[in-house]
Amino acid sequence: MRYRLYYWPGIQGRGEYVRLALEDAGAGYDDVARGAGGMAAMTGMMAAAGTPPFAPPFLKAGKLVIAQTANILLYLGARHGLAPKAEAGKLWVHQLQLTIADMVLEIHDTHHPLGPSLYYEDQRGPAKKRTDEFWNERVPKYLGYFERLVSDSGGTFTTGRRATYVDLSLLQIVEGLRYAFPKRMAKFERRIPRLVELRDRVAVRPNIRAYLESDRRIPFNEDGIFRRYKALDI
Amino acid sequence: MRYRLYYWPGIQGRGEYVRLALEDAGAGYDDVARGAGGMAAMTGMMAAAGTPPFAPPFLKAGKLVIAQTANILLYLGARHGLAPKAEAGKLWVHQLQLTIADMVLEIHDTHHPLGPSLYYEDQRGPAKKRTDEFWNERVPKYLGYFERLVSDSGGTFTTGRRATYVDLSLLQIVEGLRYAFPKRMAKFERRIPRLVELRDRVAVRPNIRAYLESDRRIPFNEDGIFRRYKALDI
Repeated sequence: MRYRLYYWPGIQGRGEYVRLALEDAGAGYDDVARGAGGMAAMTGMMAAAGTPPFAPPFLKAGKLVIAQTANILLYLGARHGLAPKAEAGKLWVHQLQLTIADMVLEIHDTHHPLGPSLYYEDQRGPAKKRTDEFWNERVPKYLGYFERLVSDSGGTFTTGRRATYVDLSLLQIVEGLRYAFPKRMAKFERRIPRLVELRDRVAVRPNIRAYLESDRRIPFNEDGIFRRYKALDI
Repeated sequence: MRYRLYYWPGIQGRGEYVRLALEDAGAGYDDVARGAGGMAAMTGMMAAAGTPPFAPPFLKAGKLVIAQTANILLYLGARHGLAPKAEAGKLWVHQLQLTIADMVLEIHDTHHPLGPSLYYEDQRGPAKKRTDEFWNERVPKYLGYFERLVSDSGGTFTTGRRATYVDLSLLQIVEGLRYAFPKRMAKFERRIPRLVELRDRVAVRPNIRAYLESDRRIPFNEDGIFRRYKALDI
């Protein structure tokens, strides 16, 4: 079965966590809105689906139309060996992905504290305050949590000896924070050595390496979740 | 099996979505931090669990320790008839719950746009701007989405003829918005008649009605997600 992924064509965004899983699994997929049908194919599907998504990304898998990043990964993980098969492990990995989803929302809030509908340029002051608070309080809490998990796992990945979609997502978190906040992150990385090792371990997985070097990987930019604004990286 | 729910003892918060499911199912549970062990029982369990939660709420179910509200509901829904058993329906209902979780985060941001670690009193101005944007842009988008689903479901609940944990959560969203923003919500409710009917249908389910009238239901207050600040309800 060839999947169809629907997401905004110009950004990594939340779709990237799904792309990383599809790529690592070597699954065949079309990134629909980047193809000939463009955005119209995406908006058309949003209106037509029997289970309409609230927002992209969503995945068409046979007759299923599945939205919400963590939900898509729950589905893919079970099919492509990117999550444990037993219920306890499946719930545990999903729980971690939902924690990453919470962090992603907070990352977005650093440049959009007054809401997603306004421009960054209209909220520079609040963005600076929110970003300071994010780096002082939230990054240490989130990344400290994952650092401990990797450290305690007794394996090479977050939850043990086998990679899951959570490991792929953590690579994206590290890469994204490096892009958006190069100075802050360079300093902070001393506190998360195991997480940096994990990122390196994921980056050399053959399918991930090939993907990151391909033009299927959209470069980071200032329309996505991770945005490089100099004023916020001080 | 008697469940043990761990959540902050003084607020409804995210724990409330779990409480509503447990109550509707008639499941036996202890609300641990509200009992004799208090907060110490909760923080002790957070440190001791093999699958440590990032934050409350979390549920102890036999040997499992499950965190993240939507993940707990995914688990409970399958066991207590509060979600379809087939994979497609299970993913669909979970997807809707994750959309509600996104909305809950945005509701929290209305009074904490500069971040969860600062007091509301230190961010009144940004909170007003964020709240305006929330009611102008986000509430119509979120509640309009659920209004359409209820309208199109062909049944009495969001996804059909049987109630799911999503319906219970939507009751909480309506109740919470009524508490936090009585003026704005009274006006907005004209636009979501089916959602208001849904709320009424859920509120008279015998176990939910008994729960809402009991002292197990913590009153809304200004430490929770839904906070009544007069300055934000204009």
